[in-house]
Amino acid sequence: MEKDVAIVGVGMSKFGELWDKSLRDITLEAGMYAIFDAEVRGKDIDGIVIGNMSAGRFTGQEHLGTLAVDMGGLGNIPAYSVEAACASGGAAVRQAYMAIKSGEHDVMLVLGSEKMSDVNQSEAMNTVSVASDWEWEGMFGATFPALYAFMARRHMMEYGTTEEQLSLVTVKNHKNAQWNPWAQFQRPVPLEVVMNSGLVADPIRVLHSSPVTDGAAGLIMCSAERAKEFTDTPVWIVASEQASDTLALHDRRDITTMDAVVKSTRSALREAGLKIGDIDVFELHDSFTIGEIILTEDIGLIEKGKGGKLVEEGMTEIDGKYPVNPSGGLKARGHPVGATGVAQIVELVLQLRGDAEKRQVDGAEKALAVNIGGTGGTSIVHILGR
Amino acid sequence: MEKDVAIVGVGMSKFGELWDKSLRDITLEAGMYAIFDAEVRGKDIDGIVIGNMSAGRFTGQEHLGTLAVDMGGLGNIPAYSVEAACASGGAAVRQAYMAIKSGEHDVMLVLGSEKMSDVNQSEAMNTVSVASDWEWEGMFGATFPALYAFMARRHMMEYGTTEEQLSLVTVKNHKNAQWNPWAQFQRPVPLEVVMNSGLVADPIRVLHSSPVTDGAAGLIMCSAERAKEFTDTPVWIVASEQASDTLALHDRRDITTMDAVVKSTRSALREAGLKIGDIDVFELHDSFTIGEIILTEDIGLIEKGKGGKLVEEGMTEIDGKYPVNPSGGLKARGHPVGATGVAQIVELVLQLRGDAEKRQVDGAEKALAVNIGGTGGTSIVHILGR
Repeated sequence: MEKDVAIVGVGMSKFGELWDKSLRDITLEAGMYAIFDAEVRGKDIDGIVIGNMSAGRFTGQEHLGTLAVDMGGLGNIPAYSVEAACASGGAAVRQAYMAIKSGEHDVMLVLGSEKMSDVNQSEAMNTVSVASDWEWEGMFGATFPALYAFMARRHMMEYGTTEEQLSLVTVKNHKNAQWNPWAQFQRPVPLEVVMNSGLVADPIRVLHSSPVTDGAAGLIMCSAERAKEFTDTPVWIVASEQASDTLALHDRRDITTMDAVVKSTRSALREAGLKIGDIDVFELHDSFTIGEIILTEDIGLIEKGKGGKLVEEGMTEIDGKYPVNPSGGLKARGHPVGATGVAQIVELVLQLRGDAEKRQVDGAEKALAVNIGGTGGTSIVHILGR
Repeated sequence: MEKDVAIVGVGMSKFGELWDKSLRDITLEAGMYAIFDAEVRGKDIDGIVIGNMSAGRFTGQEHLGTLAVDMGGLGNIPAYSVEAACASGGAAVRQAYMAIKSGEHDVMLVLGSEKMSDVNQSEAMNTVSVASDWEWEGMFGATFPALYAFMARRHMMEYGTTEEQLSLVTVKNHKNAQWNPWAQFQRPVPLEVVMNSGLVADPIRVLHSSPVTDGAAGLIMCSAERAKEFTDTPVWIVASEQASDTLALHDRRDITTMDAVVKSTRSALREAGLKIGDIDVFELHDSFTIGEIILTEDIGLIEKGKGGKLVEEGMTEIDGKYPVNPSGGLKARGHPVGATGVAQIVELVLQLRGDAEKRQVDGAEKALAVNIGGTGGTSIVHILGR
């Protein structure tokens, strides 16, 4: 297989509450690891794209593209910062994909980064709320746990999804994360602990929710012509698609389905000439566990309403038919909002290379990532292949 | 002339302190005028790029790409939000240029928008400071007037630039803005009023500084194949280039020159196969008037140190040899940070079409815009031609 754009290097900072590191520290760390992994030289890199949601509010620093060039000592190369709420990382990957495909860039460093723990938890929650429809949701107190609680409650009512199923997603993702050295929570949690954790917004509990996380992830992406210089085993971007939906949840025709996910996944599969059953491993945006359940339905792994069953039957385990979030997902790897979409791609590249160690999905050849902004206002889908 | 990417529609909201309008009102206004101007239908538009610096801090709203799709009633098309400090607008134009050139998009709505007056002036100043190196400049009180004051004082010391020359830029730009119906300040100011206005950071006075502004600007950009559907007189993007410099001013080899401007302008002229003398009209980033003086030097209109003379001799007037900022520039049109780079392109499209009315540069066929982020950490240069 050869496509227009390849990924030839990946890097991550540790994810967690990193009190002793700044936004620039973690961004540099992820970028340097990606550069080392690809064995590119600084002078080979001709541009940077960085995904970030709200560094202006979290840390007082914007203009992150230039910051990254400056800190990397990369001279005068252009740099672009992109934002699409929690899909900012996926947007950075797609922007770099288009920049390389256009011929304007050949070898790019793609970063995702967010430092969320420099503000208190209440301010962190407010800052994340700027991704909702502020005038009609956030301002009235409808934070993301509340919005996802509407979706979960409706899914339970219409399809009989249970609190146990919401909790089993957590159990699976924590189990996977124990084998991911970059994950924020590298330990399993028993079902009863999840089921009895504090209620945030009924029926969503603390352990159904992704945490506040500091972290960064990086990729080296390049044109097909340049890929051979750096590796014999590039991972190819087989499809890159994006779609939008209404910003506010209450404007949707159905709050148990994300239309943007349905459309962007269909487009991506069509572009790749694949069926969903051809994909070997998935990273799906589980900012809340109901999100993973909805996404397994919306990408077509199972009919609408049966996503809860899928996890209950073990189908989404690493050794199941459809392995979802072998990295631990947003729930257990952590969710530094601007970094998540890039971290999903890092995980899938490792899976396709066969370098995912104890969390490896055997013989994975095709992989799919869904990165969501807000409650589904943005969906970005990438299909990778080796 | 035919190039890869054309501009077939332009639109603006009024610039000013718009107390009765929200971020979404002005964004929609600029977008709708661009759509009307191009006479495209909503279903022709297959993507949105929006330049914005800090809506999260100014208004509590991020995720603006999706907001724009939603408000425009444009269905599920993808949308990208980009940030490069005060060069966010120029970055949006360049992102759309690459997206169209890559073949991933055909007809795009490009927006720049910022609503700055919803916070008080002190908070507005703090928010703009997130574009500086926060840890080494902003946090220590080095706001943008202070940073540009260093540049101005050094330029005065090395080259004999005078306070009168700094002030003559203001006089020229206010004179031009009286003929620009969208400008924030549609009135001339006499030299002595500028020279006696309050000191902000010696030698920079209030009337050497761009104001806090609400405003939005929009473009319809499309591929060469589609351009013919919409107009017989497209304006072409002849070159699009970008470069970076250190984020902090104190790390530069010379604070009287912006290396990123020098490099991106040279690349753009090379790409276009033009000399700077071939350009008929310029929009140059005058967030402070010393900026316009430095830029006239750095793009090569005159040798380093003589930029003050250029304005003094009337060379940059609308009927001068090198007309600079016929729109009134950031100083008098206003500077809604994320909108500015798009508004520069709107002005140049009108100039090349011959639609700039009383501020028209006679017979303009080639135009150049320089959009700056911070103190020159980002420079984005576009050359347009008809």
